[in-house]
Amino acid sequence: MKKISFALMVLFLLLSAIDTEAAGRPYGTSALMVVVERESGSVVVIDSVEHEFLGRVEGLGDLRHATIVFSRDARFAFVIARDGTLSKIDLLTLSLERQAKAGETSIGIAISRDNRYVMVCNYSPGGAVVFDSRDLKKVKEIPAIYKEGAPPSRTVGPLDTPDNLMIFALMEGNSVWVVDMKAEGFPVIKKFDGAGETPYDQLITPDGRYYVVGFEKSDWMGLVDTWRLDTIRKIDVSERRATGDKAAPVHHIPHFESWAISGRYAFVPAFGKKRVLVYDTENWSLKKSIPISGTGLFVVARPGGREVWVDNTGAPGGPEERLIEIIDTETLEVKDRIDAGKGAIDPQFTAKGEAAYVSIREEDRVAVYDTDTKKVIRDFKVRRPSGIFSSYRAGQFGL
Amino acid sequence: MKKISFALMVLFLLLSAIDTEAAGRPYGTSALMVVVERESGSVVVIDSVEHEFLGRVEGLGDLRHATIVFSRDARFAFVIARDGTLSKIDLLTLSLERQAKAGETSIGIAISRDNRYVMVCNYSPGGAVVFDSRDLKKVKEIPAIYKEGAPPSRTVGPLDTPDNLMIFALMEGNSVWVVDMKAEGFPVIKKFDGAGETPYDQLITPDGRYYVVGFEKSDWMGLVDTWRLDTIRKIDVSERRATGDKAAPVHHIPHFESWAISGRYAFVPAFGKKRVLVYDTENWSLKKSIPISGTGLFVVARPGGREVWVDNTGAPGGPEERLIEIIDTETLEVKDRIDAGKGAIDPQFTAKGEAAYVSIREEDRVAVYDTDTKKVIRDFKVRRPSGIFSSYRAGQFGL
Repeated sequence: MKKISFALMVLFLLLSAIDTEAAGRPYGTSALMVVVERESGSVVVIDSVEHEFLGRVEGLGDLRHATIVFSRDARFAFVIARDGTLSKIDLLTLSLERQAKAGETSIGIAISRDNRYVMVCNYSPGGAVVFDSRDLKKVKEIPAIYKEGAPPSRTVGPLDTPDNLMIFALMEGNSVWVVDMKAEGFPVIKKFDGAGETPYDQLITPDGRYYVVGFEKSDWMGLVDTWRLDTIRKIDVSERRATGDKAAPVHHIPHFESWAISGRYAFVPAFGKKRVLVYDTENWSLKKSIPISGTGLFVVARPGGREVWVDNTGAPGGPEERLIEIIDTETLEVKDRIDAGKGAIDPQFTAKGEAAYVSIREEDRVAVYDTDTKKVIRDFKVRRPSGIFSSYRAGQFGL
Repeated sequence: MKKISFALMVLFLLLSAIDTEAAGRPYGTSALMVVVERESGSVVVIDSVEHEFLGRVEGLGDLRHATIVFSRDARFAFVIARDGTLSKIDLLTLSLERQAKAGETSIGIAISRDNRYVMVCNYSPGGAVVFDSRDLKKVKEIPAIYKEGAPPSRTVGPLDTPDNLMIFALMEGNSVWVVDMKAEGFPVIKKFDGAGETPYDQLITPDGRYYVVGFEKSDWMGLVDTWRLDTIRKIDVSERRATGDKAAPVHHIPHFESWAISGRYAFVPAFGKKRVLVYDTENWSLKKSIPISGTGLFVVARPGGREVWVDNTGAPGGPEERLIEIIDTETLEVKDRIDAGKGAIDPQFTAKGEAAYVSIREEDRVAVYDTDTKKVIRDFKVRRPSGIFSSYRAGQFGL
């Protein structure tokens, strides 16, 4: 029996390999980089140990602003496309395992603590949807009706927590909702109404305890202690509107999930300002406001915490879009500046930080940096690369 | 060419499967539990997503006090046996890939930040040895000669750091040595002499920055800031010898690497006392001393940080050896007590903490607990299980 099922597996592997040109060698799944090719509806998978291209999976929908989460064993990647296409990719065979429709316009995805469900947040038709992670069958719709008669709110998020909750924010409802993923029917167990105006992104601190949400139109961030779920505290970010330098046009909404924590400091891209704000997480007071060349999109701490890498967005094709700036977490100053290429975004570190993958969007390549020397050690041809997702996220809350 | 190499891979997989009875299905490698069977020189591999037994690998030497590290992609596990047998196990095929002899009596192992080398610490002949992680060829011996004419010191450790250093301590030399794994010839770049008497174990804080070493005969721990490598600071642990409760015989040396950090607190098993000490990591002052039933061996924070699980050792067969005690990290009191079975040791959490694996040594089984309900959800027959190693460690410093 064991041999028969094994023979079937071999056959399956063989067919998959012929279909998808999977790499000709076995590999573990803990150190893969999955890179979104935004224009072609595909992802490429790279082994970040040997820095080797493994393969490409296509047919994933419209991947503008696509987001990816991983099954706990990192065998599967779940990709949510802007057009609502939800795909489950097998990272061993590099093939599409299943697909479902999550909405008309989708924005975010998370996997529950127990690996059993994925939740998708939708702009249209609004609300959130829960799928079984095995077969992508829809098991629950949460419409996000914040006012009788109003259509469901667009939602941003979701994020998973150590208590197996999912948290998302309502763009129209100015509210933050908490769903219990363990309870029958996935009830909304808490609503933080009046949280702030037009939430745009959110994060869980690396320890899994605190939830933070940013607002486009309110001069604070919302902070929730997930151990208590009692109140949403307002963290002042009026600094981002301070005069002294001009407000910068927002070409890209900064991402929250890549906020950096190093020691007791949190490094936050200012919304609409060419600055990185540093907060002391002991009391969430502003410690410093660091000027950078553009507006930060991803602000990422190198594992070990000595450096924070920031990409810069600006007017399309502008010179700042070439730069990755590196902040020293002790002096809180930009200590290094990499001219990475046209449209350099989303530095993604390996788990121990010896290398960083950067999408050079306008040059159809992903550059791999030795983080000690800041030199390129490998270049991959990738079609219009955008987000890069390390499979090490499989075990991290909120990623 | 691709198809030929693939055919060879298939053949290899097939042969491996026949040899080792590998699981009949593909799996990712990010969420494996590798359990040491100490009496039979073998390990078993369990998938902690489905809680499914995958297979067993035998012939690994004398596994008393065996330690395991993982390649970054978690395809390979490196096992160091007490008798100096160093084994490289393929976790995909569940087979022995390579073996080498690291010493007569070995105690610890680490893998370098760049995945290229493994270092082993030896009691006999003392010193440390570096191997190429691909082929297990010995590339360097570091004899740990601390005094002219004296034999090499026994060493404890090593640990890897974000700067690609390895740190180990000299049991005879009362010194802590730092090796640069990036530099030609693996030079010892720093020696902290007079650190303390008879170091017994060490750890790196989860953020990768601080190194801590415990001493059997000095009433302090040594603390090194790896960003500076300037001094070794002494952290007072005289509390462990305070009167008020009797000193407990040390049946097992407490393990350092499983020390728990939750928020700003570090939870430390007292050496030779039935207590867990809580330190404030802001200044390393003693915050509380918590009584437990035995002497703690492993003190482990549940991911998310709300609880710390402690096993209890005592006289062989004693009642305290059945207990896992659970400390609330807010009240700093034991809030729950699991009677897990005879010789319950080494709670090992899944990456997001929804389950904990515990070795029930004297009952030849590994119990899996639902961490919310504290109920057993699965039991595996495992022969005299001891250490349990989650493959999620592949991306964590010092583990």
